[in-house]
Amino acid sequence: MNYDIIIIGGGPGGYVAGIRASQLGKKVAIVESTHLGGVCLNWGCIPTKALLQNAHILENIKEAKKFGVTIPEYSVDWKKGIKRSRNVSKRLNKGIEYLLKKNNIDYIPAKGKLLNKNTVETEDKNGKTNQITSKYIIIATGARSKYFPGMEPDGNHIITSKEAMVLDEQPKSIIIIGAGAIGVEFAHFFNSYGTHVIIIESLPQILPVEDEDISKELASIMKKKKIDIRLNTLVKNISKDKSGVKIETKDGEIVKAEKAMIAVGVQGNIEDIGLEDCNIKIENGWIKTDGYMKTTTDNIYAIGDVAGPPWLAHVASAEGIVAVENICGLEPQAMKYDNIPVCTYCTPEVASVGLTEKQAIDQGFEIKIGKFPFRALGKSLATAKTDGFTKIIYEAKYGEMLGCHIIGSEATNLISEAVIARTLETTHLDVLHCIHPHPTLSEAILEATADALDEAIHI
Amino acid sequence: MNYDIIIIGGGPGGYVAGIRASQLGKKVAIVESTHLGGVCLNWGCIPTKALLQNAHILENIKEAKKFGVTIPEYSVDWKKGIKRSRNVSKRLNKGIEYLLKKNNIDYIPAKGKLLNKNTVETEDKNGKTNQITSKYIIIATGARSKYFPGMEPDGNHIITSKEAMVLDEQPKSIIIIGAGAIGVEFAHFFNSYGTHVIIIESLPQILPVEDEDISKELASIMKKKKIDIRLNTLVKNISKDKSGVKIETKDGEIVKAEKAMIAVGVQGNIEDIGLEDCNIKIENGWIKTDGYMKTTTDNIYAIGDVAGPPWLAHVASAEGIVAVENICGLEPQAMKYDNIPVCTYCTPEVASVGLTEKQAIDQGFEIKIGKFPFRALGKSLATAKTDGFTKIIYEAKYGEMLGCHIIGSEATNLISEAVIARTLETTHLDVLHCIHPHPTLSEAILEATADALDEAIHI
Repeated sequence: MNYDIIIIGGGPGGYVAGIRASQLGKKVAIVESTHLGGVCLNWGCIPTKALLQNAHILENIKEAKKFGVTIPEYSVDWKKGIKRSRNVSKRLNKGIEYLLKKNNIDYIPAKGKLLNKNTVETEDKNGKTNQITSKYIIIATGARSKYFPGMEPDGNHIITSKEAMVLDEQPKSIIIIGAGAIGVEFAHFFNSYGTHVIIIESLPQILPVEDEDISKELASIMKKKKIDIRLNTLVKNISKDKSGVKIETKDGEIVKAEKAMIAVGVQGNIEDIGLEDCNIKIENGWIKTDGYMKTTTDNIYAIGDVAGPPWLAHVASAEGIVAVENICGLEPQAMKYDNIPVCTYCTPEVASVGLTEKQAIDQGFEIKIGKFPFRALGKSLATAKTDGFTKIIYEAKYGEMLGCHIIGSEATNLISEAVIARTLETTHLDVLHCIHPHPTLSEAILEATADALDEAIHI
Repeated sequence: MNYDIIIIGGGPGGYVAGIRASQLGKKVAIVESTHLGGVCLNWGCIPTKALLQNAHILENIKEAKKFGVTIPEYSVDWKKGIKRSRNVSKRLNKGIEYLLKKNNIDYIPAKGKLLNKNTVETEDKNGKTNQITSKYIIIATGARSKYFPGMEPDGNHIITSKEAMVLDEQPKSIIIIGAGAIGVEFAHFFNSYGTHVIIIESLPQILPVEDEDISKELASIMKKKKIDIRLNTLVKNISKDKSGVKIETKDGEIVKAEKAMIAVGVQGNIEDIGLEDCNIKIENGWIKTDGYMKTTTDNIYAIGDVAGPPWLAHVASAEGIVAVENICGLEPQAMKYDNIPVCTYCTPEVASVGLTEKQAIDQGFEIKIGKFPFRALGKSLATAKTDGFTKIIYEAKYGEMLGCHIIGSEATNLISEAVIARTLETTHLDVLHCIHPHPTLSEAILEATADALDEAIHI
């Protein structure tokens, strides 16, 4: 069979690219070996958000009394919570299958491998192979959890996020190695259920990509919830026995728990897909691309996690669209990575876009910083969600919004205002003159901006 | 005592104007007869949001089972819920008092009345009067609930929102006359607690200022919750006896309930403040102002509800800042009323900015409409909040965002993206190229925009 575009991998990069290509009249095949929707939909963003909603419901129940609701007792069915999460993934997975059909895309449930620059060999789960050809090929094979030697997951005592989201039983205790978004979200999730959580992070702050002030605030809130956070801590050795795992740190400390979850990053799925045979260059473990996601071989593109950081579903989707529009001669804007929002769905949520304070200073900007605490917002007090603050970094002279950092309720929904503002090169005065609705949490963005100009009203 | 600026009224118009004036070096007095923060903070936006958060907690408890949490029984303490709401208002009220002190503003707890264009007579609760003078005066006396003859509130059977938020006991049934934001929020609140709610609205849709599609969706959701909605219905007569109220409609229907709440709009507090003596012109019951909030008397300004619609706290605050900056010679932009967000905090929430579809068509625009349902969002499914949709109206040729209408979870926080986008005259292509974080509810804005361009991915 011959296609206009073959896409290897059906995650948020691949399937979005496929749908866009179909909209533009292309004949498309998506070759996916595991499950449509990729890690994001099946083992990442989505099922974790479902689990975190379970946690959110539990939090509400715990604080119901202050709202005048007395709950003498309640019981938590761990398995049911897990099952709901799996069902959400299943439903969305079926949804993608429906979308592919609707868009006349051939979904080939098989492993795909480049034989040459125009041919993909597919191998289904029964080992049956087939060859399909195409003028263009997009590689969207994604990434998988990374681990360091000596911390190989065994799926039982030492696990990755994938096993962590389908545990048969709630663990009494867990050590989470790595305090990026995934580590922090699982720490919050397990803690809400009552599991004792220990976080081990090699760097000096949790959420290392976030602004230091934000990470400090989150660490302080998590500590109040009895999460044990150990920064600047390197794992020397993990051993396991029947009762669980024992971790020895480089400083000689011993940390024990029922399970250990490894969340130290991801590595690209670059193996065994025929890259070498097509002169596709790899750099630091990721497929090298230009701004239109073209690899070093002219008709082959790579998008999403396999094309390197930032490893985010929304980036993969955007890259997929840019690649397809480039293939179709639509002259899209090249990918830019300076306005990508990053979200962590713990309580309170964390979201940011643009430069941290340190990055802005390191890059030589003169800056004005505005900060506003959620506890000074009427909506926060009314809803009893007063943790956190907004911090916005403006360039001092012309007022460009260099970075926006939010820790607080609904931060992940609020950040989009900053993303669109930055897309339009909004200045602090533009934000200040934009009438924000009252009482909402978005007023924190208005007030932080006013603070940067020494005009904040409510602090 | 002589001031630079005297402000009569300490609501979200008055106190914000006062703080801004103080920032600009002015000597300010705020004369407030009842409570700092005005209706919004004490009897409006804020205490209702606190009550609605109680309702939100109750909703979560009712659906806890689907998240794997079994609650065999729970009890609801009505009074405690009310008390929390009052406490939130009290705390914020004290917060405003603190802010005024911090800004060296003289807070005069008294009734203010213009004696002439530079003199205000204050009368405290003991009847003691005083005179203060000022170069500039800002009138920010607000508004109060309106009612039609024959539906005069008695504070017991026939009430306004003010009494409704401090009822001693939960009513078994309530008729809400008027389905604007206030009526709809209280309908949702009482319904969540289990009160039987009947809404009577004279117009053909609830939330009459919203896009018709949005109002229809909300009505359909509220009906599923057993709220009895009667549109195109005029009240002919209200009578009351021991057991409650009886309403006869113009169509001859009889509706009975324990209480009736009147929510048919507001009227300006223009009486007995000396307007006539200062040649301040009233138009349709509201003080007439120019774009800088100047009344027909040069040194006297009017802001907030008393200066006419839209009667929103965020508008009052913005008007207060414009008035003060105009007084101080800062040449602010004149007030514009075409980019004001409007929010209703029921479940799901409703928020909008700009033109409805009908308004856009009536104004002669060629339009492209984009729509996207929340149930097609991963975040909505993960959090089990799938009701609602986003509808965006773009001008067809250049892609200006004419209006954005959201019904769904967190709509009131999401709308700010559209407000800032419209401030910057963002086009549909700008929104489309702005990478929205996944999985968030703000993706509905991205997808609705893509839909307007026939490029939506997930529908």
